[in-house]
Amino acid sequence: MPYFDVASTAPLHPLARQALLSALDEGWADPARLYRDARQARMLLDAARETVAAELGARPDEVSFTTSGTQANQLAVLGALAGNHRKGRHLAHSAVEHSSVLHAAEQHEASGGGVSAVPVDRLGRVSAPDFAAALRADTALACLQSANHEVGTLQPVAEVGTLCAEAGVPLLVDAAQSAGRLDLPEGWSLLTASAHKWGGPAGVGVLAVRKGVRYRSPLPADDREGGRVPGYVNVPGAIAAAVALRAVRQEAKRLNPVLSARIARLRDQLPGLVPDLTVLGDPDRRLPHLLTFSCLYVDGEALLGELDRAGFAVSSGSSCTSSTLTPSHVLAAMGVLTEGNIRVSLPPDCTDADIDGFLEVLPAAVAAVRSHLDAPSAGPVKQGTLVLDTLGRRCPIPVIELAKHFGEVPVGGLVVVLSDDEAARLDIPAWCEMREQEYAGEAAAAEYSAGADRPGRAYLVRRLS
Amino acid sequence: MPYFDVASTAPLHPLARQALLSALDEGWADPARLYRDARQARMLLDAARETVAAELGARPDEVSFTTSGTQANQLAVLGALAGNHRKGRHLAHSAVEHSSVLHAAEQHEASGGGVSAVPVDRLGRVSAPDFAAALRADTALACLQSANHEVGTLQPVAEVGTLCAEAGVPLLVDAAQSAGRLDLPEGWSLLTASAHKWGGPAGVGVLAVRKGVRYRSPLPADDREGGRVPGYVNVPGAIAAAVALRAVRQEAKRLNPVLSARIARLRDQLPGLVPDLTVLGDPDRRLPHLLTFSCLYVDGEALLGELDRAGFAVSSGSSCTSSTLTPSHVLAAMGVLTEGNIRVSLPPDCTDADIDGFLEVLPAAVAAVRSHLDAPSAGPVKQGTLVLDTLGRRCPIPVIELAKHFGEVPVGGLVVVLSDDEAARLDIPAWCEMREQEYAGEAAAAEYSAGADRPGRAYLVRRLS
Repeated sequence: MPYFDVASTAPLHPLARQALLSALDEGWADPARLYRDARQARMLLDAARETVAAELGARPDEVSFTTSGTQANQLAVLGALAGNHRKGRHLAHSAVEHSSVLHAAEQHEASGGGVSAVPVDRLGRVSAPDFAAALRADTALACLQSANHEVGTLQPVAEVGTLCAEAGVPLLVDAAQSAGRLDLPEGWSLLTASAHKWGGPAGVGVLAVRKGVRYRSPLPADDREGGRVPGYVNVPGAIAAAVALRAVRQEAKRLNPVLSARIARLRDQLPGLVPDLTVLGDPDRRLPHLLTFSCLYVDGEALLGELDRAGFAVSSGSSCTSSTLTPSHVLAAMGVLTEGNIRVSLPPDCTDADIDGFLEVLPAAVAAVRSHLDAPSAGPVKQGTLVLDTLGRRCPIPVIELAKHFGEVPVGGLVVVLSDDEAARLDIPAWCEMREQEYAGEAAAAEYSAGADRPGRAYLVRRLS
Repeated sequence: MPYFDVASTAPLHPLARQALLSALDEGWADPARLYRDARQARMLLDAARETVAAELGARPDEVSFTTSGTQANQLAVLGALAGNHRKGRHLAHSAVEHSSVLHAAEQHEASGGGVSAVPVDRLGRVSAPDFAAALRADTALACLQSANHEVGTLQPVAEVGTLCAEAGVPLLVDAAQSAGRLDLPEGWSLLTASAHKWGGPAGVGVLAVRKGVRYRSPLPADDREGGRVPGYVNVPGAIAAAVALRAVRQEAKRLNPVLSARIARLRDQLPGLVPDLTVLGDPDRRLPHLLTFSCLYVDGEALLGELDRAGFAVSSGSSCTSSTLTPSHVLAAMGVLTEGNIRVSLPPDCTDADIDGFLEVLPAAVAAVRSHLDAPSAGPVKQGTLVLDTLGRRCPIPVIELAKHFGEVPVGGLVVVLSDDEAARLDIPAWCEMREQEYAGEAAAAEYSAGADRPGRAYLVRRLS
């Protein structure tokens, strides 16, 4: 079964597996103790730290092992804000950071801090001047990912790093998606990463804090990992993580162009194979192994299921697959179609045959999902407009209804879609942009509904052609 | 090399090692995804949760996997306090809880909460009535370990659980030292444990929250592990932890009497083999595999070194080995000698020959440490008392000086020990108790010193015999 989801988790690197097995035998003891096996565990942990530091461009005493990338981000955000609280309580981050950064920002905001989200363009990229404009005299921390986890767009970290340094603001760079694949840009004050994304084991993350950067742990005191990460250290995990990182960094030179060429094939051929498919993200400044696209009139979860049955493991940032049922905040910030979203991220052992297979399977999978979706009847026409009542129905039904009945109004006419699905607010404007029709704003559903006090919103689309 | 430190970390159980290797192959995918390998990882994680829940006497939906016992305790303390904040902000805990509980309590106190530490007797045990007396109308959480990690004393959890239930106070039971070895008592509202203490891998802990107990995560939002533990779940680790727990629980019936008999041999024979050795902890209500003793006039770190050279891996709660250089809070709370402290905790594969070897080696090791310690000269006599100036000298020198020169004053006379080592405050009274002499209190060192403003304290001992 071709595995196209390394951006969720990469299979354990063969050398990391070997290192883990050895470390279970050699590095099992408590590194804080004072006997031979403990000293050996401590030496192995020190060696793992030195390797990770060297590969990430940090000093060993700047590197702490965490238990996940999420924990690393939470500690980095809250620890840097606590350490710099005298400067102020303002946090600036891009709108497309990983949820662990956004949730830490929410907690900061709930406790009275200020937060600014820097917008991105339709490719998912922040502009360095926009980011600089968000920095204030009381900004205690700025956060910018090295590359976006949903669409693969690289961020201008070096430029933002320079601007942050000029403003005296420490910069946290979440490098979870690029560590091991691409060299890290200069300019970070805090750096985070996650070992299972680079072929290391689950349960190991990295938090690096540059010498001189103020940091105060937000958690109860504990003297392990330089006082930054409480709890018994997973020494075998750290060793395996270090071995994997060194290995993938060496392999990246050879592998990146190969993966990049495979992604380019997908990028070139997919839109011609599947109607109404849009490839997302920056076509040039991007991760080598990752591609995301959205398909109009498709339920992302159903499409994942079709692809699974066809033997392909992929994931989705679509509203329909997340447990919270809210649309992907990344795609929303980009202002692109969120429905029918698929993220392909290729493993090192991907073959051309796997790509051929995916290109062959996808059109039928999309067609199957589209054919399964029912067509509800149109609502009553009122004031010369066509009202489509999709209240109570989930993504992608509202957009499907819009597309099916759009031809029923003359050029210049208005179609009103009633929906209480949060994704419609994003996807109806995105459909208008794709179809070059005019999105004419939204209103309360009750204004266009026959019923007295219907919930939900009305989305207005004017036919231009 | 006989390993006598399973209370720090137990070697990976052979069945857990096998399970870990299988799980690296079968349970490597992201359990949150929607393809075959992900479903398999999710099923394995569910099975691991069911096993751990069954072995701990919990429901599967009450159990979350954490990344360590320390994290489990931090989350349990802060999460239960946050969830019950309407009841009040008071926390009651025994004085001998694990440092992760105490540090969480310190953070709570620093943020304005109230904390009461319930004292223990000289065996390290709280009394249930004392614990009940510490509960107040505004007590939001009580914490009591199942067994003490330094001296092995079992706590009256069931009795305290009943009293807490009557008072409407949730009880957190830190079961890190007993889980897998002894059945858990009834009465817990929250339960924590650490897999590497029972033969599971590092990087896995357990937090169980009883259905209906109020809990609010103190960390930024994350939907994994029931919203209780943020970050990507270490599925292979959880599986190996579950397999180890089931295995050690099955083995405990056979193993506990064997280990208990070996500990009894040490308890019986050690005081006769080494002069001025005191065995600590409850002789009856105790963990089966753990024994702690202190040796007068011994530097604990030096003794660990001697035992390591002799091939024995043990640890110490002594002031001289912890990185903070403060005396063990457990031994301090018990009011017993903190110096020359050694904790022996036996692994499943311990042999009678290992015990024989330890009994043979220890007397020489203690004698070697004692002979290496210099004897400083006595200070000037003032006002009819003998003043021993040990300012600037570390444990166990103050007590050694006291013992060496004690005979120089007549019965009824006073010996004053000047010391700036925090351990002296604990160990000089403990020495008095052991020697049946009178501890007559303390004063500023300057009161008994020839110098004008010497720092440190003066400890007064009256000779009774």
